[in-house]
Amino acid sequence: MLPDLNDLNDLRNFLATSPGADAASRQAASERNGQLTKPPGALGRLEDLAIWYAGWRGDARPQIKAPQVIVFAGNHGVTAQGVSAFPAEVTVQMVANFQHGGAAINQLARSAGARMDVHALDLDRPTADFTQAAAMSDGEFLVALRTGWTSVDPAADLLVVGEMGIGNTTSAAAICHALFDGAAADWTGRGTGVDDAGLQNKTRVVAEGVARHTADGPDGLDILARLGGRELAAMAGAIAAARALRIPVILDGFICCAAAACLQAVNATALDHAIAGHQSAEGAHSELLTRLGKTPLLSLGLRLGEGSGGALAINILKSAVACHSGMATFAEAGVADG
Amino acid sequence: MLPDLNDLNDLRNFLATSPGADAASRQAASERNGQLTKPPGALGRLEDLAIWYAGWRGDARPQIKAPQVIVFAGNHGVTAQGVSAFPAEVTVQMVANFQHGGAAINQLARSAGARMDVHALDLDRPTADFTQAAAMSDGEFLVALRTGWTSVDPAADLLVVGEMGIGNTTSAAAICHALFDGAAADWTGRGTGVDDAGLQNKTRVVAEGVARHTADGPDGLDILARLGGRELAAMAGAIAAARALRIPVILDGFICCAAAACLQAVNATALDHAIAGHQSAEGAHSELLTRLGKTPLLSLGLRLGEGSGGALAINILKSAVACHSGMATFAEAGVADG
Repeated sequence: MLPDLNDLNDLRNFLATSPGADAASRQAASERNGQLTKPPGALGRLEDLAIWYAGWRGDARPQIKAPQVIVFAGNHGVTAQGVSAFPAEVTVQMVANFQHGGAAINQLARSAGARMDVHALDLDRPTADFTQAAAMSDGEFLVALRTGWTSVDPAADLLVVGEMGIGNTTSAAAICHALFDGAAADWTGRGTGVDDAGLQNKTRVVAEGVARHTADGPDGLDILARLGGRELAAMAGAIAAARALRIPVILDGFICCAAAACLQAVNATALDHAIAGHQSAEGAHSELLTRLGKTPLLSLGLRLGEGSGGALAINILKSAVACHSGMATFAEAGVADG
Repeated sequence: MLPDLNDLNDLRNFLATSPGADAASRQAASERNGQLTKPPGALGRLEDLAIWYAGWRGDARPQIKAPQVIVFAGNHGVTAQGVSAFPAEVTVQMVANFQHGGAAINQLARSAGARMDVHALDLDRPTADFTQAAAMSDGEFLVALRTGWTSVDPAADLLVVGEMGIGNTTSAAAICHALFDGAAADWTGRGTGVDDAGLQNKTRVVAEGVARHTADGPDGLDILARLGGRELAAMAGAIAAARALRIPVILDGFICCAAAACLQAVNATALDHAIAGHQSAEGAHSELLTRLGKTPLLSLGLRLGEGSGGALAINILKSAVACHSGMATFAEAGVADG
């Protein structure tokens, strides 16, 4: 059941008390795993994945039949600072591309047998330039969070959230710099492909934004409102809603993980229902995954966003669960177990 | 078209002159890739995979609709030396499990939308213990090779070959030690789980076999006959047949790659139509992949064989090709290309 989300403290309260995995289902899945016709541990991480999924679904022999991919799009006032290699108009053009089925994420969602939804968040009203003001007011932030919170299909059994938003690697870098230690340069990368001068400018923007917005000890949600974007807020809302609905999540790349990190900053267990789909080629994603305590399933040099890396990993998790739930036990197959 | 394979020199001749990828299709695929609605290179290795696949299929905008997984099973006389944690009877029991759909590879093939075939090769007639004699005579070897050579469906558009054979990590280690430099211990691992004493014994067996069979300068096929097994010979035959049929191959783990390495020893380009599906947890597989010049798509700790790692990677390649062939170009989508 999805709780109401009437103000930001409702989300804070939910994160503080959010439900854990079902220990009995997890234990039963672990016992089943030990009886399957393979040497112990021979399926490697697929075994851990299936047991993890079983625990979160509360079903020792689950199936994955209804994955959902949701792409959120937003525009960023910080693009006025010249932080992206692409013009801001590309966000709305790519939303049309998603809607017509022409983007990478459309192909990847189809290959994974996933439903795909697209939510464009007030594209004609970019967030404020965070070097000048908070990206969003609390009211604007709540609206974006709620878009994500209510976008998750309660009948889904797996969730991937992705994003499109020219300028949003700058937001993600600023969030990481605000949440974690290190210098602005440690968290700032080339995004869709800025040059050396562009990278230097982007690093300056990240440093200025973080200096402006972190003096008063903001929590993860404050940081997301002040430095994030509507699509990042919506991703965080959807990831939190999935927890309420017991729907496991595969995280995508740097921007998705930055949004997710804001939840983890509020409660260290807030992402226990999520795994990392891939390690992005965007420079700081590897370090961010380390901070989240997540080992990526894939590392294939993707740096596209859109949920692409998370969607690509769906079939890995599906395969893991298919092995777990479909294989015969030693007793059923009449195989000697060593 | 599949050439006749009437003696081992027919295969040697085929390997010496085997066809390359279609350069025009590859070039056209590369040009298409540059026009797709994403920043340049943002799909990472998926882009390289799609272009590689297009070249081998001779189609700049291909699809993957008919993957084939073939599992070959054989028994090994070298098990008399106590090299495996499982009894040899498990090979025939697991073949029944494959036939009844209960093994990991059945679930993984289904998850990949692949047809699966099983070939049990003379299970009641194990190969000779290679510490005492050649595992196979040239005649026995040719029969096993031909089983693989003729097992590939000419209508398939992607091939994964896997194996089942108690004792076959010992064969694979001996093949690697014979083909490459290093000590027997460098190539010998724990297989399905032998203990320290078992590993020491297995290393002795590998060293003795290689010492016995390599003094006269054997080529890759000779090594495969003397130290391999029927299932390894069949895998090599199938991989070579796929080259003749222009069917790209995803290699599985240590044993599959050891069989494939025997082809590469005859002609350095013999595996250009193959990619590495995963890096197995079996100790020496990483080094073997380096010798083959292949970077694995996945590294998830699998060490099962059966074609499991190769089959798990099918959906990655399918997704890569789906993006390449299904995405809109910048012009089609009306997106500004930076």
